[in-house]
Amino acid sequence: MNIALLGYGVVGSAVTRALLENKELIRARCGEEIKPVIALARSPKKDALIPIVYDVEEILKRKDIDVYVELMGGVEFAYELVYRLLKEGKRVVSANKAMLAYHRYELENLAGKLAFEASVAGGIPIIKALKEGLAANQILSIKGILNGTSNYILSAMSEKGANFEAMLKKAQELGYAEANPSFDISGEDAAHKLLILASLAYGIKALPEEILCEGISEIDALDMEFAKEFDYTIKLLGIAKKQDFSVELRVHPTMIPKNTMIAKVNGVMNAISIEGDLLGESLYYGAGAGGKATASAVIANLMEFAKENYQEPMLGFKQNLPFVLLEKEEIITKYYLRLKVEDKIGVLSKITHLMSECGISVDSFLQKPKINEPYSTLFFTTHKSYEKSIRALLKALEKQEFIKAKPFMMRIEE
Amino acid sequence: MNIALLGYGVVGSAVTRALLENKELIRARCGEEIKPVIALARSPKKDALIPIVYDVEEILKRKDIDVYVELMGGVEFAYELVYRLLKEGKRVVSANKAMLAYHRYELENLAGKLAFEASVAGGIPIIKALKEGLAANQILSIKGILNGTSNYILSAMSEKGANFEAMLKKAQELGYAEANPSFDISGEDAAHKLLILASLAYGIKALPEEILCEGISEIDALDMEFAKEFDYTIKLLGIAKKQDFSVELRVHPTMIPKNTMIAKVNGVMNAISIEGDLLGESLYYGAGAGGKATASAVIANLMEFAKENYQEPMLGFKQNLPFVLLEKEEIITKYYLRLKVEDKIGVLSKITHLMSECGISVDSFLQKPKINEPYSTLFFTTHKSYEKSIRALLKALEKQEFIKAKPFMMRIEE
Repeated sequence: MNIALLGYGVVGSAVTRALLENKELIRARCGEEIKPVIALARSPKKDALIPIVYDVEEILKRKDIDVYVELMGGVEFAYELVYRLLKEGKRVVSANKAMLAYHRYELENLAGKLAFEASVAGGIPIIKALKEGLAANQILSIKGILNGTSNYILSAMSEKGANFEAMLKKAQELGYAEANPSFDISGEDAAHKLLILASLAYGIKALPEEILCEGISEIDALDMEFAKEFDYTIKLLGIAKKQDFSVELRVHPTMIPKNTMIAKVNGVMNAISIEGDLLGESLYYGAGAGGKATASAVIANLMEFAKENYQEPMLGFKQNLPFVLLEKEEIITKYYLRLKVEDKIGVLSKITHLMSECGISVDSFLQKPKINEPYSTLFFTTHKSYEKSIRALLKALEKQEFIKAKPFMMRIEE
Repeated sequence: MNIALLGYGVVGSAVTRALLENKELIRARCGEEIKPVIALARSPKKDALIPIVYDVEEILKRKDIDVYVELMGGVEFAYELVYRLLKEGKRVVSANKAMLAYHRYELENLAGKLAFEASVAGGIPIIKALKEGLAANQILSIKGILNGTSNYILSAMSEKGANFEAMLKKAQELGYAEANPSFDISGEDAAHKLLILASLAYGIKALPEEILCEGISEIDALDMEFAKEFDYTIKLLGIAKKQDFSVELRVHPTMIPKNTMIAKVNGVMNAISIEGDLLGESLYYGAGAGGKATASAVIANLMEFAKENYQEPMLGFKQNLPFVLLEKEEIITKYYLRLKVEDKIGVLSKITHLMSECGISVDSFLQKPKINEPYSTLFFTTHKSYEKSIRALLKALEKQEFIKAKPFMMRIEE
């Protein structure tokens, strides 16, 4: 089986190296040699293990390519190329989550075959687990740590009691965060992966812009302290949850009980917790990025193509499942609030009054004596409320003159 | 697809119920209805959802059965029945780890097809992950919490500082341990599962009797205390590890660093950590027992049969991999020792002298002042040593008159 690599960066060269180094084992396990024969790159690569070309047409005109591996990143150019290949009935493996977040359903309906295990959580075989291992289950919920950069920063903030900026800088120094980290810390990258998982479980066709997505940059050392005190851990989670015929999809920093397995996942690692009606909770943990880990998933797909037993992944879509995306405002969960307020009579009474007007009831409240600070910080957690209620409350609070900084809100999952 | 259930206990009735309740979803996902039509039981079942028979020939004479699900337990009768079915070219799903631990290779070579996802770690799709998701990887090691009963007892001992007998009793009261718990606490059950995993990864044909297997009943509250103090957690692990062309297989209570993911798995849950040359460490966590969780794995196999894309699992065997079982005595690891000794001059010197004679060097040592006890307890950890060295040391120690109880040894994995 001859392979062309569309993209020859960290992952492309790792795929090539792994195919060469584990050649015998791969042949024994899938009955065929999988041979990387050519790669597309933007610029010359020294020490490339296979011939490199710079014009995609050089690859497309060849007749001896059995499977194309798309590792380019970016949405539109990759989409056009993969579309063209699939339309011609070719087989494509893609690790491009951004492209899939926008175009997965169109691409699945073309004549060719598209496999994308590497697009979510790197080397963790989560797509296989969801579409085959858990195929007998109704998927009740998915909760994933889907971005290693964010998880590194949050783990480091929690461990060291440090603030966000300092730990982002450290992540950049260690190569865990890019010079422009916004894609990782805004939740956008996690949202792309969540959408792919939600397609498999529920056939949900949502676009990234349509789902609730918040990043981690406003989390403060004070929030970490509160979380510790109340036995929570803060993680950036991608959450998909079924309720009757609707599914809520959201990506945001989340307080979760510290004794849950997913709360114990630290550093750059990824993990996905899936709750099925039969299996209950199961969790899948591993490296969510890196050349070799991603190569593990890419080659697993190539081996399925070699054995001709690749299963179309979009179960939900093929089934025409009846699920619709729940409106953001209708999501129900528990909330955490941090408010910086003037320390004067009547403030607490006013806040709790606004809360009850918005239909929100307090689950816990914390105010510590202030030390050398002009204002007091109040911490609340709420019972389950509608997203629209908490938004109304935040809007009302922002108008109060005793509120001395933008109120900060985080969601709680239990 | 018509299914006959050979065995209608907790799992058999859960499989039946799940096939009926999730009928539409299963049909949509695998393109066929999977219909349980008859079950074999030992005694009458009230409220059975399908016809029950008590003579296996009643099932075997039927011509309309497409797949047989073996859920009987026990080795020889189940083996003979499955052998007969597979020899006739039938398809069989089995959850019977004891039977597979002894007969898996013979059965795999027969004309029919044998699937056994449910035989290891209940509903966790670990066999699929190993044989397909991680197929591109050389498997460097497998470390599994494969027995929920033992893990419950050890977790409870660690949490409560209680001793083994008290927590075994509690597990029995809660229904987590059977009246005769020896199969679970001796490590035998975990050994059966480890052998199945090792077959997939390495093609190792070992029998349960041939591998190192120790249980948890000699662990003391003192060991739990030591572990805590030195940042370890004690777990009953099944370990398979490759070294050049040999594989070590062992089941025993193990001290592991408390910050590893597998150390954080508590209660009756199972988890398997797999290290691959590409992926690095990945971990799979979930319910290792129970009717519904096991049904999840059984039905996943049935759905593969329905889609006709079931993959023969014994990769290693089919590949004729060159791995041989490492002799027990040649295993190298770190050790923990607890010695009850007379408190007199020269004892420590004699112990350390015996250690150096056996080629064992001390990594840490702890002796606490004794309070109202006639003897002192000494705790050692060693650098890496051969199993044969530690056995020689234990033999030598047992002969010393200053040793006042059988020396206790546990292995350390880092």
